Amino acid sequence: MSTATDTRHMARALQLAAHGLTTTSPNPRVGCVLVRDDRVVGKGWHERAGAGHAEVQALAAAGPAARGATAYVTLEPCSHHGRTPPCAEALIAAGVARVVAAMQDPNPRVAGRGLERLRTAGIAVDCGVLEAEARALNPGFISRMERGRPWLRVKLAMSLDGRTALASGESQWITAAPARADVQRWRARACAVLTGVGTVLADDPALDVRLPGTWRQPLRVVVDTQLRTPPQARLFTRPGRVLIVTASERDPAALRAAGAEVVRLPAAAAGIDLVALCAELARRECNEVHVECGARLAGGLLGAGLLDEVLLYVAPLLLGDGAHGLFHLPGLLRMDQRIALEALDQRMVGRDWRLLLRPRRAAAAAGMGYGATIAGAAAP
Amino acid sequence: MSTATDTRHMARALQLAAHGLTTTSPNPRVGCVLVRDDRVVGKGWHERAGAGHAEVQALAAAGPAARGATAYVTLEPCSHHGRTPPCAEALIAAGVARVVAAMQDPNPRVAGRGLERLRTAGIAVDCGVLEAEARALNPGFISRMERGRPWLRVKLAMSLDGRTALASGESQWITAAPARADVQRWRARACAVLTGVGTVLADDPALDVRLPGTWRQPLRVVVDTQLRTPPQARLFTRPGRVLIVTASERDPAALRAAGAEVVRLPAAAAGIDLVALCAELARRECNEVHVECGARLAGGLLGAGLLDEVLLYVAPLLLGDGAHGLFHLPGLLRMDQRIALEALDQRMVGRDWRLLLRPRRAAAAAGMGYGATIAGAAAP
Repeated sequence: MSTATDTRHMARALQLAAHGLTTTSPNPRVGCVLVRDDRVVGKGWHERAGAGHAEVQALAAAGPAARGATAYVTLEPCSHHGRTPPCAEALIAAGVARVVAAMQDPNPRVAGRGLERLRTAGIAVDCGVLEAEARALNPGFISRMERGRPWLRVKLAMSLDGRTALASGESQWITAAPARADVQRWRARACAVLTGVGTVLADDPALDVRLPGTWRQPLRVVVDTQLRTPPQARLFTRPGRVLIVTASERDPAALRAAGAEVVRLPAAAAGIDLVALCAELARRECNEVHVECGARLAGGLLGAGLLDEVLLYVAPLLLGDGAHGLFHLPGLLRMDQRIALEALDQRMVGRDWRLLLRPRRAAAAAGMGYGATIAGAAAP
Repeated sequence: MSTATDTRHMARALQLAAHGLTTTSPNPRVGCVLVRDDRVVGKGWHERAGAGHAEVQALAAAGPAARGATAYVTLEPCSHHGRTPPCAEALIAAGVARVVAAMQDPNPRVAGRGLERLRTAGIAVDCGVLEAEARALNPGFISRMERGRPWLRVKLAMSLDGRTALASGESQWITAAPARADVQRWRARACAVLTGVGTVLADDPALDVRLPGTWRQPLRVVVDTQLRTPPQARLFTRPGRVLIVTASERDPAALRAAGAEVVRLPAAAAGIDLVALCAELARRECNEVHVECGARLAGGLLGAGLLDEVLLYVAPLLLGDGAHGLFHLPGLLRMDQRIALEALDQRMVGRDWRLLLRPRRAAAAAGMGYGATIAGAAAP
């Protein structure tokens, strides 16, 4: 049975978990607080793959004080040997009296076995405290475990009249500096940054994270059906890996020489099979994927029901109706086919508006409750 | 010399003036408070053309208590015989000791003569208390007097991806009921509602005000270069006048029989000469003109620098890039030609966002300071 005290300590564990927002990839963000006699005796969070899990950090901080304590952990402690030994065993060995978890681990290798192991060892176990908030902290990890695909968030910057670029392709810059800096933080939390070759050819973006102190670069992925990415692209001039996904049979030697990994995926009517693309990214342990692309790829992902979130920056400018739109949706012909979105967050970033939205269809298809996901609407 | 007390009483007079928001056309909205020994002894506001001015209403309410009082009035008292006798004379006759005006009357028939008449009669006069707020209450009247043209506010309803209608023309409804009800209040405050024949043919709108208690209908104006408005249009089924503005030489007998007034104006490259249209509306004493139209007329007005405000409703929907845009701006080809807007107000109306913006160019051209106009950003 959980109490207000449990909620309070779990909220602290969630705050700790968020320290790992940009660094835990491909692992989930996890925080842990050890409490004895309502006093925090140890806390920890997972920082990066291969480093200690949150529970292990908290136990190390608590030392002997962990004996008889309650452990608040934002995700079920693991029961399997991964890069590190199982945390369930570490909690048992430390003599913890009770474990409160926010949610069960959706990883099929854990999936309740961690909690079961604790119970078998005579430890009191509760699960589900601030579960919605804990799920909102790891939409990508949960999506990959539960749906076998990453959580796709498309970032778009548009004028007030819904245009992302002029007819000439010119698009720099629609939003002002504060909005562009904000985008860096969203890139930083993603496991991968995805774009289309059209954007590479038009804008030649680097797509890397340029925040101070960055040591982990997301994988940069280019959807390039015909293998048109130039080996001179700025993508290859910045640190971090580049993956080119293609349906072409052409020899990718020049791109490989430039530093790209090139993989072939099945073709579909409008280019790459996007479902296969998402499966490939999940196979590569991508949780959240940050998408920056043009109307064609954005429309393709939206139309395929693969888009989970829309991060939209709106600049107080007009570009006119000759300019490029947000989403290419050739099948949308009647008003009853319009795609409804749910707004999760809206704010000013400098002189621009920032909206975070979810396509209702995608959310429904994903079986993700709105209440759950809005509650912790994670902003970077 | 004005004081905090003056500001407080003038603020009350401005509140009173706003009671006439939808009814004073073609007159300005004006309020008046009579104060003696810091006690309000009379108040009034102008309700409709032909009815008593605010000062006369306040004097009638005060009776003998007006003697020795200070009159706070949001616009310089008139000095000329219009539909009613001059208010300056009424204030003098009532024995008022001091008059505080928010602003001088921009009407060239007054233009300081009212204040001068008061001073000549030995009354203490101050002018300029809450002037910015007073100007914001009557953007249309001031525009007509100072620029010889009405204040044009275009209302647009768009999807999140900047579309006002599907390629088929289907547009009902993008916004939800609360936003559509809000539009009624903006129509109600206008002297005229302006549209293009394309909108009449596509949507067959009635464009009337359907708020409870409405007794004044704005003039409805259709820009119809080729005289294509059908005499069966819903426009003609509702109370209120309809004006068709055309460049066609065709016989408008059928439209006149349907109840329309038809006037010819000079043609320009893209249709009617829009500067001539604005002059014609000013000649007809239109202060604020509420525009509901498609991308072509909206783009024409914006391109001609005639658009003063954009009232934009944004629905959380996607319609795709095959749909119609907001502004047809064929000359906008380079990023440095983009049109910047200033946001005056933003809020939720039901599930939709409402933004009130001003094109920076138009505002600059009109010589209207932003500080002044933002301060009292009049919402209905």
